[in-house]
Amino acid sequence: MKEKLTIVKVGGAVVEDEAQLSQLLKDFSAIEGRKVLVHGGGRKATKVAEALGIESKMVNGRRITDAEMLSVVTMVYGGLVNKNLVARLQAHGVNALGLTGADMDVIRSHKRPPVPGKSGASETIDFGFVGDVDRASGKMLSRLLEEGVTPVMAPLTHDRQGHILNTNADTIASETAKSLAPYYDVTLIFSFEKKGVLRDPNDDDSVIPTITRADFIKYKADGTISGGMLPKIENALAAIDAGVSCVIITLATAIDGHHGTVISL
Amino acid sequence: MKEKLTIVKVGGAVVEDEAQLSQLLKDFSAIEGRKVLVHGGGRKATKVAEALGIESKMVNGRRITDAEMLSVVTMVYGGLVNKNLVARLQAHGVNALGLTGADMDVIRSHKRPPVPGKSGASETIDFGFVGDVDRASGKMLSRLLEEGVTPVMAPLTHDRQGHILNTNADTIASETAKSLAPYYDVTLIFSFEKKGVLRDPNDDDSVIPTITRADFIKYKADGTISGGMLPKIENALAAIDAGVSCVIITLATAIDGHHGTVISL
Repeated sequence: MKEKLTIVKVGGAVVEDEAQLSQLLKDFSAIEGRKVLVHGGGRKATKVAEALGIESKMVNGRRITDAEMLSVVTMVYGGLVNKNLVARLQAHGVNALGLTGADMDVIRSHKRPPVPGKSGASETIDFGFVGDVDRASGKMLSRLLEEGVTPVMAPLTHDRQGHILNTNADTIASETAKSLAPYYDVTLIFSFEKKGVLRDPNDDDSVIPTITRADFIKYKADGTISGGMLPKIENALAAIDAGVSCVIITLATAIDGHHGTVISL
Repeated sequence: MKEKLTIVKVGGAVVEDEAQLSQLLKDFSAIEGRKVLVHGGGRKATKVAEALGIESKMVNGRRITDAEMLSVVTMVYGGLVNKNLVARLQAHGVNALGLTGADMDVIRSHKRPPVPGKSGASETIDFGFVGDVDRASGKMLSRLLEEGVTPVMAPLTHDRQGHILNTNADTIASETAKSLAPYYDVTLIFSFEKKGVLRDPNDDDSVIPTITRADFIKYKADGTISGGMLPKIENALAAIDAGVSCVIITLATAIDGHHGTVISL
């Protein structure tokens, strides 16, 4: 039987709220056994960019990572957010190690080619220095975990040609989970600002306890699940297909594995 | 016989000069055997602070690290500089891993208490979030080296109480070298913008080939060696006292071990 491993993904909003962050770090530290923390950091980067006079370019609601913005996210995600999380986890007795995908070559990606825009193939959107993941190295990560190290992963990858690339934190979490599934019995927890996947977006207590693939197809068709939750659940189902034992979507202050929505086959 | 390990310290000025940096990374990648890169990053932090409207506070020519400046150095040293070096080394086939002292608890420090100012004990200078090193963990670092990993160390440490602290890069290099001396035959190379320790500051070719402790005492007394070079050589001699085999002070584009000034007992 494989040993248990818990991977917790925490969003940028939680990282910036001291009360929530402090609780999350306490809860994360209390998780028994081997574990990994994956963090976002969106709003802080926007603030720093603003202060530096760098304009956040958005197309259809999505951020474009030009060279200047890449410097900002490398500073903020890889430096400010990541290193403070590591230092604080060390204070909790967790032997944390901050990683981007470039470190020990743990997550390799390629720069996303321009994609067709909304108006069709004639218009394309170049997202800039954004990396789509090619592979995460479960082997390297499992060696660190075996040493008692807790990886703390920033949403940055590299192309093996010397460039850092900006990568979605949910993707980092699910790719990491998939790469570690051959070595561990992996539970992947996506924490965010809601108690789970809600049946009614206006009722915070309307958490759907479990969602199977069949449920998802139904909820997607009838509009119960929509917007940003769709790729999250698609990500979760793909992780389960790839051998991850359990995916949970829950509140950042309820990552004990007993709350939220459980995604299963 | 112990295996050879080369530790190269590169200053902030080199990191910011693309031509020099590119050469240094090529030369560093070509060094055979196990190795560590330690980097500074001073000017870039000043520039980013300036752009953010944060004033660089200096007392007697030394930077004060207040909370805002700590955020800047954490971003710039731990994120921007460190992660770009790591990504570029990966492109050279070096399995680099970026580290601050907080990562895997490799370098622990304590916040420097206020020190007496120039005018005597009545005036004190508080350097702010600056860490004086308590210990570097040669054990953790040697485990990484044994895995074929090349640590890339930023001039940041932690106090084990959740705080990142700003620490001199020369100190990081010599403390790292000392901590690894029990495991390896360590060569420590301080690279900078001169060909070595110069007999005549106006003659770039007046490199002193070797400096023993006795030489140092003489050169210090007669003023041949002064200013910022004094602590560098004191650091070097202390490293040798602690078991480091060889310390070399050389040009950033001549780190092959055959150039510069060799410091010995």
